[in-house]
Amino acid sequence: KKIAVLPGDGIGPEVTAVAVNALQRVAEKFNHTFTFEEGLVGACAIDATGNPFPEETLHLCQSADAILFGAIGHPKYDNDPTAPVRPEQGLLAMRKALGLFANIRPVNTFKVLADASPLKREIVEGVDFVVFRELTGGSYFGAKGRSEDRNSAYDTCTYTRDEIARITELAFTAAAKRRKKVTLVDKANVMETSRLWREVVQQYAANFPDIELELMFVDNAAMALIQNPRRFDVILTENMFGDILTDEASVITGSLGMLPSASVGSKVALYEPIHGSYPQAAGKNIANPMAAVLSAATLLETSFDLMAEGQALRNAVEEALNNGFVTVDINPTHHLGTREVGEKICS
Amino acid sequence: KKIAVLPGDGIGPEVTAVAVNALQRVAEKFNHTFTFEEGLVGACAIDATGNPFPEETLHLCQSADAILFGAIGHPKYDNDPTAPVRPEQGLLAMRKALGLFANIRPVNTFKVLADASPLKREIVEGVDFVVFRELTGGSYFGAKGRSEDRNSAYDTCTYTRDEIARITELAFTAAAKRRKKVTLVDKANVMETSRLWREVVQQYAANFPDIELELMFVDNAAMALIQNPRRFDVILTENMFGDILTDEASVITGSLGMLPSASVGSKVALYEPIHGSYPQAAGKNIANPMAAVLSAATLLETSFDLMAEGQALRNAVEEALNNGFVTVDINPTHHLGTREVGEKICS
Ligand SMILES: CC(C)[C@H](C(=O)O)[C@@H](O)C(=O)O
Ligand SMILES: CC(C)[C@H](C(=O)O)[C@@H](O)C(=O)O
Repeated sequence: KKIAVLPGDGIGPEVTAVAVNALQRVAEKFNHTFTFEEGLVGACAIDATGNPFPEETLHLCQSADAILFGAIGHPKYDNDPTAPVRPEQGLLAMRKALGLFANIRPVNTFKVLADASPLKREIVEGVDFVVFRELTGGSYFGAKGRSEDRNSAYDTCTYTRDEIARITELAFTAAAKRRKKVTLVDKANVMETSRLWREVVQQYAANFPDIELELMFVDNAAMALIQNPRRFDVILTENMFGDILTDEASVITGSLGMLPSASVGSKVALYEPIHGSYPQAAGKNIANPMAAVLSAATLLETSFDLMAEGQALRNAVEEALNNGFVTVDINPTHHLGTREVGEKICS
Repeated sequence: KKIAVLPGDGIGPEVTAVAVNALQRVAEKFNHTFTFEEGLVGACAIDATGNPFPEETLHLCQSADAILFGAIGHPKYDNDPTAPVRPEQGLLAMRKALGLFANIRPVNTFKVLADASPLKREIVEGVDFVVFRELTGGSYFGAKGRSEDRNSAYDTCTYTRDEIARITELAFTAAAKRRKKVTLVDKANVMETSRLWREVVQQYAANFPDIELELMFVDNAAMALIQNPRRFDVILTENMFGDILTDEASVITGSLGMLPSASVGSKVALYEPIHGSYPQAAGKNIANPMAAVLSAATLLETSFDLMAEGQALRNAVEEALNNGFVTVDINPTHHLGTREVGEKICS
C-alpha cells in the first residue's frame, strides 16, 4: 500500500511525522508493508516551484492508495487575498483535481477534556456527531468576477442533482451505522441551490424510512450547535455552510487539537487534522499530534479497511490522553512535546 | 411623530404590545405625542390579504417616522420552502422596498444573566460588541434559478462598491464612539465579492487611522465568537455571513430574549427584537418582552434622537431584571408573565 504524504506548512510537518511513525508501528505490529512518498503542497510548494499544487504532487496523489495531509498556510499570505499565488489555491486545486467531494468531520467530546471547552460541561458532555460537507461545488468553484469598471463583483453558487446525490448517499450510509438521523442544513428560504438540496435529499430519504431526516436553516444550526450540540448525529451541508459550521463545531468540544477529518473522492481519499497550519507553533515541538494520528487511524479504516489497525491507533491515543501524556494545548502545566507524545503513542 | 407598528406573527403581537405601552409611558412622562398605526406583515398578512407585505403596509411604513416590528413566521410554512407565498418573503420585500440596508445588532452580556449562557461565565462576562450586517445585497437578492431540466440550480451573490461603502460608513461611525475597532468578516480567500469588500473597507479605513481594522475569514469568526467573544467591538459583514454570525452571536450571551436590533435605511428605520416569532410560546403570555422594549429604546435614540427617553426605557428594563421581574426564559422557577413584566417596566 502506498501512502502519499503531504506535510505542507506550519506545524504540518511535525504532526505528520508523528502520524507516519504511528503508521509504521502499525505496519510492524500487524505485518503490513506501507510505503510513504512525500510531496509538496501549499506555501512550501510555492517557495520551491511557484505552484501551490505542483503536477508532481498531483501524480503522486493519483498513484497513491491514500493521502496523509498536514496543513497549509503561511502568515506572509495573510491579509493579502489578492496575491496572485496563494497556498489555499493549492488546497482548492487538490480537492478539485482529485475529486474529493465529501469532507467528513467527526466531532466528539473526550471525557478528560470536557472542561477544556468554552461551553459548559453539561452541554458538551456526550457530544458525538459527524459533519458531511460538500467540497467541490457551491460558491467555491462557480463563476466569479468583476464588472468592467471593477465597481461590482459577483460569485455564483451552483449545484447539480448528481453532486448532491453522491454526498447524500455517504451521509445516509454513515447515519445507518450511527443514531439514524441526518440533519440537512441549508437556507432554503432564500437560496435556489438549497431548494435543490432539499428536493434531492428528501427524495433520497424516502427510501430509508428508518433514518430520520431533519431540515434546518443554517442560521438556526449555528445557534443549535452551541445550545444543544447533542441533538446532532449526521449533519449534511453544502460547501460554504460546511466551512463555517465545521469550524464552529470544532471549538465547542474544546478539542480542536484532537479532531481528524477525511476528504473522500471516487478514487482516492485524503486524511488531515482539522487544526490547520498554526504558524505561531511551527518548529517549536509543541503542536498536538493526536489529530494527525487519529487521521491516520481513519485512513487505515476507511481507505484500507483495516479496522483493528485503526482501533489500535485510537486506543493508543486514548491511553496517552488518559495518562496525561499530552501537549500544552491540553495541559498547560504538565505537558510533553510533539515528538514525546508521539513516542508515547507509538510505544 | 408617527410610529408604524407591525406586530406580525407568533409572539410578535404580545411583545410589541408591551413595547407600545412603554413608548406611551415615555410620551406621557416626557411630554411627547407619538401616534401609532398598525399594519400587517408575515403569515397574518398572507391570511388576511394573500400578500405577506401588502401595499397598504408599505405605504404605512413610508409615511411613518419609524417602524416598530415584532416577528414573522408560522409553523405551517416550515419545511416547505417552495410554497408560492411565504412569510419570509414579506420580510425580504420589506427590507428591499424600504431600502433597509444595514441590520445593526448589539450583543452584550447582562450581569445577572451571565450564568444563563451555554458558555462559561469567564468567557461571556463583559462581552459587548455590535454586528453591522448588510441587508439588501448578496445572495439574498441576486439572480437565482434552475437549468431547463431543473437538474441544476444557481444563486448569485453580488455587491457593488456603493452598497459596501454606505454600511462601512455606519460601522466606522459606530466604532468611533465605541472601542475603535472594526472587524471585517469575509471569505476573501474564496469569494470575489469578499475581495471587493476588502478593497472598499480598507480604502475607507485609511481615512480613520485611529480606528483599527481587523480582517477575519468567516470560518475563523465562527470560532472566535465562541472562544473569545470579548475580542470584538464592531463586526462588519455581508448579508449571508451576517445572518449566520448574528444568530450564533445571539446565543453566546444566553440572553436571546433581551437583544434588540435596528434595520436602517436612508429614509426610515425599523426596530425589532431578534428572537423571532417563537410560535410555541404564542398566546401563552410567557414571551420575554424586554428585547421589544429595548428595540423601542433604540428607536427613540436612533430615529428620534431622544437619548434621555431611550435611557429611561433601558433603566426600566435593567431595574426589572435586577429585581427579578422576569419571564420564564430567564428564571424558570420565579417568573412573571409577558404582560406583568411589561407592567413592571412601565411603572
Ligand atoms: C483555506 C480555505 C480555502 C479552506 C476552505 O474554506 O475550504 C479552509 O477553511 C478549510 O475549511 O479547509
Ligand atoms: C427569515 C429569513 C429570510 C431571515 C434572513 O435570513 O435574513 C432571518 O433569518 C433574519 O435573520 O432576519
